[in-house]
Amino acid sequence: MGYREDLLQEVPFPLETHDLAIDAHELAVQRTGGEIQGVSVVEERKEVAKITRIHVMNEHGAQAIGKPIGKYTTIESEGLKGQNRLVHDQLSEIFSEELAMMIDFDQIRPHPNMEPTIFVVGLGNWNATPDALGPQVLNHLMVTRHLYMEAPPELRKGLRPVCALAPGVLGLTGVQTAEIIKGVVEMVKPNLIIAIDSLAAHHTSRLANTIQISNTGIAPGSGIGKVRPAINQETMNIPVIAVGVPTVVHAITIVNDAMEEMLRGEIFSKVERERFRHVEESEKKRMMVNILGPFMGGLVVSPKGVDELIQDVSRIIAGGINIALHPDITPENISLYL
Amino acid sequence: MGYREDLLQEVPFPLETHDLAIDAHELAVQRTGGEIQGVSVVEERKEVAKITRIHVMNEHGAQAIGKPIGKYTTIESEGLKGQNRLVHDQLSEIFSEELAMMIDFDQIRPHPNMEPTIFVVGLGNWNATPDALGPQVLNHLMVTRHLYMEAPPELRKGLRPVCALAPGVLGLTGVQTAEIIKGVVEMVKPNLIIAIDSLAAHHTSRLANTIQISNTGIAPGSGIGKVRPAINQETMNIPVIAVGVPTVVHAITIVNDAMEEMLRGEIFSKVERERFRHVEESEKKRMMVNILGPFMGGLVVSPKGVDELIQDVSRIIAGGINIALHPDITPENISLYL
Amino acid sequence: MGYREDLLQEVPFPLETHDLAIDAHELAVQRTGGEIQGVSVVEERKEVAKITRIHVMNEHGAQAIGKPIGKYTTIESEGLKGQNRLVHDQLSEIFSEELAMMIDFDQIRPHPNMEPTIFVVGLGNWNATPDALGPQVLNHLMVTRHLYMEAPPELRKGLRPVCALAPGVLGLTGVQTAEIIKGVVEMVKPNLIIAIDSLAAHHTSRLANTIQISNTGIAPGSGIGKVRPAINQETMNIPVIAVGVPTVVHAITIVNDAMEEMLRGEIFSKVERERFRHVEESEKKRMMVNILGPFMGGLVVSPKGVDELIQDVSRIIAGGINIALHPDITPENISLYL
Amino acid sequence: MGYREDLLQEVPFPLETHDLAIDAHELAVQRTGGEIQGVSVVEERKEVAKITRIHVMNEHGAQAIGKPIGKYTTIESEGLKGQNRLVHDQLSEIFSEELAMMIDFDQIRPHPNMEPTIFVVGLGNWNATPDALGPQVLNHLMVTRHLYMEAPPELRKGLRPVCALAPGVLGLTGVQTAEIIKGVVEMVKPNLIIAIDSLAAHHTSRLANTIQISNTGIAPGSGIGKVRPAINQETMNIPVIAVGVPTVVHAITIVNDAMEEMLRGEIFSKVERERFRHVEESEKKRMMVNILGPFMGGLVVSPKGVDELIQDVSRIIAGGINIALHPDITPENISLYL
Repeated sequence: MGYREDLLQEVPFPLETHDLAIDAHELAVQRTGGEIQGVSVVEERKEVAKITRIHVMNEHGAQAIGKPIGKYTTIESEGLKGQNRLVHDQLSEIFSEELAMMIDFDQIRPHPNMEPTIFVVGLGNWNATPDALGPQVLNHLMVTRHLYMEAPPELRKGLRPVCALAPGVLGLTGVQTAEIIKGVVEMVKPNLIIAIDSLAAHHTSRLANTIQISNTGIAPGSGIGKVRPAINQETMNIPVIAVGVPTVVHAITIVNDAMEEMLRGEIFSKVERERFRHVEESEKKRMMVNILGPFMGGLVVSPKGVDELIQDVSRIIAGGINIALHPDITPENISLYL
Repeated sequence: MGYREDLLQEVPFPLETHDLAIDAHELAVQRTGGEIQGVSVVEERKEVAKITRIHVMNEHGAQAIGKPIGKYTTIESEGLKGQNRLVHDQLSEIFSEELAMMIDFDQIRPHPNMEPTIFVVGLGNWNATPDALGPQVLNHLMVTRHLYMEAPPELRKGLRPVCALAPGVLGLTGVQTAEIIKGVVEMVKPNLIIAIDSLAAHHTSRLANTIQISNTGIAPGSGIGKVRPAINQETMNIPVIAVGVPTVVHAITIVNDAMEEMLRGEIFSKVERERFRHVEESEKKRMMVNILGPFMGGLVVSPKGVDELIQDVSRIIAGGINIALHPDITPENISLYL
Repeated sequence: MGYREDLLQEVPFPLETHDLAIDAHELAVQRTGGEIQGVSVVEERKEVAKITRIHVMNEHGAQAIGKPIGKYTTIESEGLKGQNRLVHDQLSEIFSEELAMMIDFDQIRPHPNMEPTIFVVGLGNWNATPDALGPQVLNHLMVTRHLYMEAPPELRKGLRPVCALAPGVLGLTGVQTAEIIKGVVEMVKPNLIIAIDSLAAHHTSRLANTIQISNTGIAPGSGIGKVRPAINQETMNIPVIAVGVPTVVHAITIVNDAMEEMLRGEIFSKVERERFRHVEESEKKRMMVNILGPFMGGLVVSPKGVDELIQDVSRIIAGGINIALHPDITPENISLYL
Repeated sequence: MGYREDLLQEVPFPLETHDLAIDAHELAVQRTGGEIQGVSVVEERKEVAKITRIHVMNEHGAQAIGKPIGKYTTIESEGLKGQNRLVHDQLSEIFSEELAMMIDFDQIRPHPNMEPTIFVVGLGNWNATPDALGPQVLNHLMVTRHLYMEAPPELRKGLRPVCALAPGVLGLTGVQTAEIIKGVVEMVKPNLIIAIDSLAAHHTSRLANTIQISNTGIAPGSGIGKVRPAINQETMNIPVIAVGVPTVVHAITIVNDAMEEMLRGEIFSKVERERFRHVEESEKKRMMVNILGPFMGGLVVSPKGVDELIQDVSRIIAGGINIALHPDITPENISLYL
C-alpha cells in the first residue's frame, strides 16, 4: 500500500456539497414562514429558463440564509441536460446577459482609455469527468490577452484582453489552488477574475439543471474535511465572479435523503421518528458503512451521460463568457470567433 | 426536444444489476441454512486475493442459486482498486491461471496440429467511463491473428491466433451486440469467445474488488427493461467465457439499501417494519422520485477515481489474457510482448 | 524486442496514399492535353465551396484516369479547416445534398412501403488522431435502427433506420475490416453502406480542404504493402458509398515532392535533371533513409491543430449524413435532433 | 475568418527546432576538426542506452557550440520507442541517476534540517499529442508537498515535498508561460524547478530516441517567430533543470533535409551545387510553398504511434523523477508508490 494511496484521497474532486443561494433562501423562507429582511429576490421567466436574482444586502440577510453579502443569480433550465443546440445557444445568450450584469466594466477599467484584463479560471480536476467542467470551458474560450498586447489596434477593436488558467486540484499540484491563482494574479495584474467550478449538489434534482453566478467568489466552506483558502475579492484584491454548475451528488447525500424520506409522510408515527432522531451517530455511521462500504465518501452519483453533459455545458458557458466580455461579439456573429 | 433524447435512453451503459454467482450462492445458503445440492464450492486464499470456484453441476443447483449450469470463478482482492503495480502483476497472473482452467485448448483445436483461434470481445460503451472496461482491455491485448496468418512459422511459435472487437452498445450502433458478434463469428470462425464486460454491482462493497470468470457466457437477464439476446455457446455455437468486473452501482440500488438498512437492527419494532413492508409500490415509487429526481434510473454511483481505476483493471485483465492464451508468454517475460 | 513490435507495424493507420478522382482526372487531362473520353465533369461554385462531379462512364474513361467506373464528387473548401461554425453548417448542408444525389432511396427500398436500412461504417483507428475521422463521425450520428424497430409509428415518421459500426483496423482486431463489415451485413441485412475514412493525401495542398464522395466503395489499391479486400457493391452485394477526407501526408511523399521540386524550374539543366532521373533506386533509397531515419514509412505529416480539425470535420460529415438520410430533418431543425 | 484563426497560430505547440547539445557539439567538432576548448565530454555505454555528459565550462566553450555554460546530459536509446516494459524500467532508473547528478540537494536545502521543495513543471499543450509530454508526466508524478505539510512525520520520512503544474501554452492562456511559473514560484517558494518539455528535433533520427537533461533551464532561442522569456536560474532565482525529448520534426526541416541531401554525394557537380546555393531566398520560399502548401510552418512530422509513444515516455520520465527525488524510493519498490 503506497503513499500514492494517500494522494488518492486528494486527487479526485474534493467537492464540498454546495448549497445554492436559491435553495438556502427557500429553506430560510420555509423556516421563517415569510420574506427575509435584507434579502431581495427577483424572478424572471424566459422561454427556456427561469432566472432568479438574489441580492443579500446586509449582515442580517447574510445570517438568515447563511451566504455572504453579495449577488447570486441562478439560471434554471432542463434544457441544460437536453441535446437541443438551439436551446443551448439561447442558454449561452441568457448566461452572457446575467454575467454581464455582474460586471461593471467602467469601474474595473485600469485607465479610462484602457480595457480591463479578465482572468478566467477553470477550477477542477480534468482527470475526473464530473469535475472537469472548469478545465473544459477553457477549451472553448476566446483567449486574447497575448494578441491584444502584440496585435495592431485593428485587431484589438471590439475585443477585451482575456487570459485563462486551469490550475488543477490540490491532489494534482500539491499547492492550494488559491495560491496558484494568487501568484498568477500578482504577475499578470488582471482587473477581474471569473472562476468556473463544478459543484456537488445537495439534491439530485439540481444535477445539470442550474447555473449559479455570484460576485462573492468561491469560499470553500467547512464541507467535507479541511477548509481551503477562499478565492474572492478579499484574498485576490480584485473582484471575483464565481460560476458554478452542480454535476454530482455525494452518495452519502443520497443515503441521507433516503433515510429522511422514510421518516416523512404517514409511514411512521411522530414517536417512531423521534426515536430514530435519537439514534446515536455511531449507529448511523455503522449503517452508512453497511450501505456505502469501503469507499464511503469516495462514492459519487452522476448521470450516465455525464461525459457528454460536461462537454455541452462547457460550450454553453464558454460561449456566454465570450459574448459577455467582447463588445463586438453578439449571439449572431459569435461563430465568427469560435 | 429531439429524437436524440430517445437514443440517449440507450446510449449510456444499459447495465443490469448483476448478481455474482458467489453472492447468489451465499444467499441460497442463508435461505436453506446449509450446503446446496448440485453446487460445489472450492475456496483458495492467496497472498493478494481470495479465489472461489463455484461449479453448478445440475438443474437442481441451477434452480437453487438462480444461475445456469456451469463454472463460476471469482477473484476477490482489495488490491484491484489499489495503486500497487506489484500487486496488479500478481492479480494478472492469478487471473491468467483461473482463466486458463476454464479453457480446454485441446478440445477447441480445429485440427490436432492447429492452434485454436480466440475471439476477445470488449463489451460496453467507450464514451461512458465506468462502462469502458471491455473496450479498454482491447488497448492492451496482444492481437495476433493477422500476424499468425501472414507471418513465417518462427513468428507463430509460442503464440495463438487472437482477434478482438469492441462492438459498442445498442445505443451507439442500433444493432444488438449479439448480432454483431454473431456476424463476425460466422466470418472469422473462431473456436472460443472471451467476452469482457463491466457489471453493475448489487452492493457498493463489490465495486472494483472482484473479477468473475464463467463459462456460461453472458445472458442479459430481465434486469432493467428489455431482454437482450444472449452471448453464449447456444447462440454462438462455440464456447463463450465471460469476464466481468463490477464498476458501478445504480443509485436506485443504494436508496433501496438505505431503506432496508433502516429497517434492520433495533431501531424499529417488528410491527413497524411490517407496516413499511406493506406500503404500496406506488408510495415507494413516489419516495424514489423525491430522492432521485428526474434522472431516476439514469443515475449511477461510482468511485471518484473511476477513470484511473478502469485503466488499471483493464491492464490487469489484458495482461492475464495474454499470458493465458500464448504458451510462450510467462509473467516473467510478458513485458517482452507488451 | 517483442512481437508487439510486429503488431505496431499494423496498429497505426495503414493509409495508402489516395489519389482523389479530381486529381487523377486533372493529370490525365494534362497528359492527353484535352478532355477524356468516357469521363464527364461538372463543376459548380458555391459561396463557401467548389463542387466537382466526375462521372466515369465506361472502361475507356476508367483506364484513362485509373479509377473504377462510377461517380466521384469532391467538395473543396478552405472553410473545412477554418473555425467558423456558420461555414461548417453550410458545408454540412452542401455535403448532405451531394450525398443524397448518390443515393436512389426508391431503388434500395426492400419493399415499396418500407424504408431502406442504412449502415454507416466509421473506418480507421481511434487511437491515431489523424485516422480517427471515421470513428468520430459515429459520435455525432443519429443511430435509429433500434428505435425504428421498437418504437411506435409516430416516432418512426420522418426517420430512416440507421445503424453504425467502427470496426477498427487490422492491427487492433486481427481481422480484415471488410470481413467484419461483411459479417455484420449478413446479420443485419442493410440496403446501403456509407463508409467514412481518413485518406493520406498525395500533396499537402489537399490536407483538410476536400471531401470526396463516390459510389465505387473503398478498394484499397496496391499502395503501401499488402492489398486488403475491398468494401464495395461487389464484395458486399449492396451499394457502397465512400466518403473520404485527406488528413495526413506520408513524410515520404513530402520528401519526394521536395526532390521533384528541385528538378523543376530553371535551377538545373535538362541534362542534370536527366542524370538524377537515372540515379539507381538503391541510391534514392539511401537518401530517403538519411532524411527520414529509422521511422521511414512510419512518419506522417499533419497540421498542428489536427485534433481539433478531426473533431470539426467529423461534426460536418455526421450532420450532413443525418440531413441526407432522414426526410424530416432539415438544416433548420437539425439541432432538434443533435 | 475569426480572431480564433489568429489564436490558432499560437494554440498548437510553438516549438522551436531545438539543437541538442550533443549535436551542437558534434557539429563544432566537425567544423574545428578537433576537440573544443572549454567543453568536456564523457561518454558511457550501458546495456540499453548511451549516456553523454557534456560540460560547457566557460564562455569560449559556450561560443564554440552555441550553448550556455552548464551541464548537458543526453540519454540515447532506441528502447524509448520500443514496447518493452523491462527496458522502460531500466531507462527510468538511468534517467533518475543522471537527473540526481544534476541536483545538489544539500546546496538547495532551505535549512540544514529541512528538505528542499521541488517544483515540477510540465510544459506544452495537452491538446496537441506530440506536445503533451510535459502535462502527461504530471499524471504519473508523485505529488507530495500538501501531504508533507499536513502529514505526520512518519509519512514524511523518505519523501521530499514535490509540487507540480502544467501551465499550458501562450495560445491557451494568453500569458507567457514563464510569467505563470514565476508567479507560482513567488507564492510557493520552491528550491528547485524541473521543467519537462517536448522538443522539435532538427532531424528525424532524433525522434523519440533521446532524453536531454540540462541545468541551464529553458531559453526559447530565436527559433521560429517571437522570442519568449526564459525559464532559468536568472529569471526564477532558483536552479532550473530542463528535461527535453524530441517528439516532432517540422515539415520545413524535412524539406530542407531533402534538398540538402540531393546536393550531397555524386549526383551533382560542385558547380551545380554552388548554383543552387545561390538561388535567391524568394525562389526557395516559392519552392517551399509548392511543397508544403497553405499550412507551411503549420505542418509537423511525427511517428504514426505518437499517442502511445508519449504515454510510454511520460511514464519513464515520471518514474525517474520519483526515484531521484525521494530517498526511500528505489527501482525495486517504486511500484509501492505508483
